Amino acid sequence: MGKALIIGAGGVASVVVHKCCQNPDVFEEICIASRTVSKCDALKAKLDGGKTKITTAQVNADNVPELIALIEKVKPDIVINVALPYQDLTIMDACLATKVDYVDTANYEPEDTAKFEYKWQWAYRERFKEAGITALLGSGFDPGVTSVFSAYAQKHYFDEIHSIDILDANAGDHGYPFATNFNPEINIREVTANGSYFDNGKFIETEPMSIKRVYDFPQIGPKDIYLLHHEEMESLALNIKGIKKIRFWMTFSQNYLTHLKVLENVGMTSIEPIEFEGKQIVPLQFLKAVLPDPSSLGPRTKGKTNIGCIFQGVKDGKPLTYYVYNVCDHQECYKEVGSQAISYTTGVPAMIGASMVMTGKWKRPGVFNIEEFDPDPFMDALNKFGLPWHEDFAPALID
Amino acid sequence: MGKALIIGAGGVASVVVHKCCQNPDVFEEICIASRTVSKCDALKAKLDGGKTKITTAQVNADNVPELIALIEKVKPDIVINVALPYQDLTIMDACLATKVDYVDTANYEPEDTAKFEYKWQWAYRERFKEAGITALLGSGFDPGVTSVFSAYAQKHYFDEIHSIDILDANAGDHGYPFATNFNPEINIREVTANGSYFDNGKFIETEPMSIKRVYDFPQIGPKDIYLLHHEEMESLALNIKGIKKIRFWMTFSQNYLTHLKVLENVGMTSIEPIEFEGKQIVPLQFLKAVLPDPSSLGPRTKGKTNIGCIFQGVKDGKPLTYYVYNVCDHQECYKEVGSQAISYTTGVPAMIGASMVMTGKWKRPGVFNIEEFDPDPFMDALNKFGLPWHEDFAPALID
Repeated sequence: MGKALIIGAGGVASVVVHKCCQNPDVFEEICIASRTVSKCDALKAKLDGGKTKITTAQVNADNVPELIALIEKVKPDIVINVALPYQDLTIMDACLATKVDYVDTANYEPEDTAKFEYKWQWAYRERFKEAGITALLGSGFDPGVTSVFSAYAQKHYFDEIHSIDILDANAGDHGYPFATNFNPEINIREVTANGSYFDNGKFIETEPMSIKRVYDFPQIGPKDIYLLHHEEMESLALNIKGIKKIRFWMTFSQNYLTHLKVLENVGMTSIEPIEFEGKQIVPLQFLKAVLPDPSSLGPRTKGKTNIGCIFQGVKDGKPLTYYVYNVCDHQECYKEVGSQAISYTTGVPAMIGASMVMTGKWKRPGVFNIEEFDPDPFMDALNKFGLPWHEDFAPALID
Repeated sequence: MGKALIIGAGGVASVVVHKCCQNPDVFEEICIASRTVSKCDALKAKLDGGKTKITTAQVNADNVPELIALIEKVKPDIVINVALPYQDLTIMDACLATKVDYVDTANYEPEDTAKFEYKWQWAYRERFKEAGITALLGSGFDPGVTSVFSAYAQKHYFDEIHSIDILDANAGDHGYPFATNFNPEINIREVTANGSYFDNGKFIETEPMSIKRVYDFPQIGPKDIYLLHHEEMESLALNIKGIKKIRFWMTFSQNYLTHLKVLENVGMTSIEPIEFEGKQIVPLQFLKAVLPDPSSLGPRTKGKTNIGCIFQGVKDGKPLTYYVYNVCDHQECYKEVGSQAISYTTGVPAMIGASMVMTGKWKRPGVFNIEEFDPDPFMDALNKFGLPWHEDFAPALID
């Protein structure tokens, strides 16, 4: 079929590469590019020898001319952006300049704010339309699959959806008293940022972690869930007709929150350097050095994730409730692709989103969120590529 | 009356110096000696001009010949040891060589173990007796005043004491989420060491922090108390006739324990250096640098301590219960001597113990624990020098 340029070489990129290689009819060739080419070469070495041809390249994704030169040299059909969120715009600029389709997994975020918003990327709509190329935004799990679930519920089950509860549970246990999968700064920001939910046409802000429930997740059991702001609510509020309420919930254990709070209390999460033995040291950097290396967590994480959506609305004048979710097992993911479920659930949909565009199923000039396309081929692909989903028409509800 | 050599210049030493200056009839002259003479000079500068003459000196308390030379030069009537616990033996050796009386506040502890035991100091009994000099061990609050309380209860109220519960409550609040008054290593050792209590002739070991009660302290209110090992139980078990049970209880807040546990969990209390930016850094040392400076706590600590003993036994064939305790206010202590109640409650009894020996009231050749002497003059002095005590014959009991 064609060629993809994958920018990034972290945990998610690794899953994308594995999954492209499992889908060689679409991904005949891939080029893996990142700042550190040795990481790309390591991925290539791991997967070389299958049907998909793999090349690697070095690129600084902050630098538009460098990106353009790379795209012109590689000549991909699509760019799969699994680099950092604040590199979305430079990569979109390079795609515009070279007229190549674009897909990412997380919306643009300026480096100096903590505000997730689509406005920066939506501002590219006209230019992508005029260039005749497709940008598919947020093709991870949440955002991504949660939006596909929404479009699927809308298409097949509801005349009108009135409320969506997005539930993201991670019941993984790495056996350490405390460790973070990624940057502790991001962990801390999650639990210290205001929450928000959509209610009758507007977003209501809430105090950080102030709305808590317990939900009994299928295959996981009861977990504490907290209402957070999350980016897909912004596009779903616009794209799901008749929607009145959207909430996003994420699990955090009391143990995790206690550790984060204590570390914040004593100053270990501060990014202000302190003088120590004649050297300026940032406490957060030292904390990172003391904590288990995130890359060591994969092989030892047990348990499952469960991410899905509960829809409430009407069909043929009658109230209807519908819960659709995926359960992913950390150890099985690690066995298959060498990454645990957090990276797996983001990387698989990135590959699928790219394949939707490459196969023409979701090819349309402009900048789009996932729920604007026909969900059926994406839902089929989820079952095929490792993220099978389950339906329940009588789930427990969240008050 | 005479001259005291005070070895040490920390928080407790500062209180001892202040209190000696409030008692110039006994302490006509004092010499303050420590490794860092500038600390001694600072204390002298603060208190000079009163009736007590103050001099200072430099000394390494690990070095017996240096100590002997200093004692021979100063010619004190007594040495008040408020240096570090593992320096008790070198200072006792120097007192033996120069035939000068000795008093300390905490029993000897080898640097490489965490075992508080009197055996090392009791081994000096014969030599002190032959030299005709007095060693008074553990003249702080606990040990110290708790032993005076025990002797006083024995002398005035009971025919036989069957049980002693020693209760040490610190309800001070420094306003920080977490800080330690002294070395975090010692804090951690306290809560990770096995507990023990005396029961019918033998000591029973308990798992660390495994025995917890709530006690409603006079002037403080209800606090969590935990059973710990504490050194005065060893001598009280021998010196209080007929005693069947002795327990020591200390308050720890859940917040304090949680912070300590989290910091231990993430490795911040480790003394094993880690490689950080090309430098070997001990996590505990870095933690100390991040935490509030202990010396900053004094001026901001509010609230009270309450330390005392509950005795149960018989008098004239009838059961009797007796609770005697001191309540100390952190802010009032700070106002008076520039140290909060933790140092104050240790430093005042050290001065009183030294004055007991210097005035001949407790002068007897040998090595003694506090409860072996007549408690009455010490109890009078507590009321006079800032640690007044209260009695209650119907206190709440600990099951």
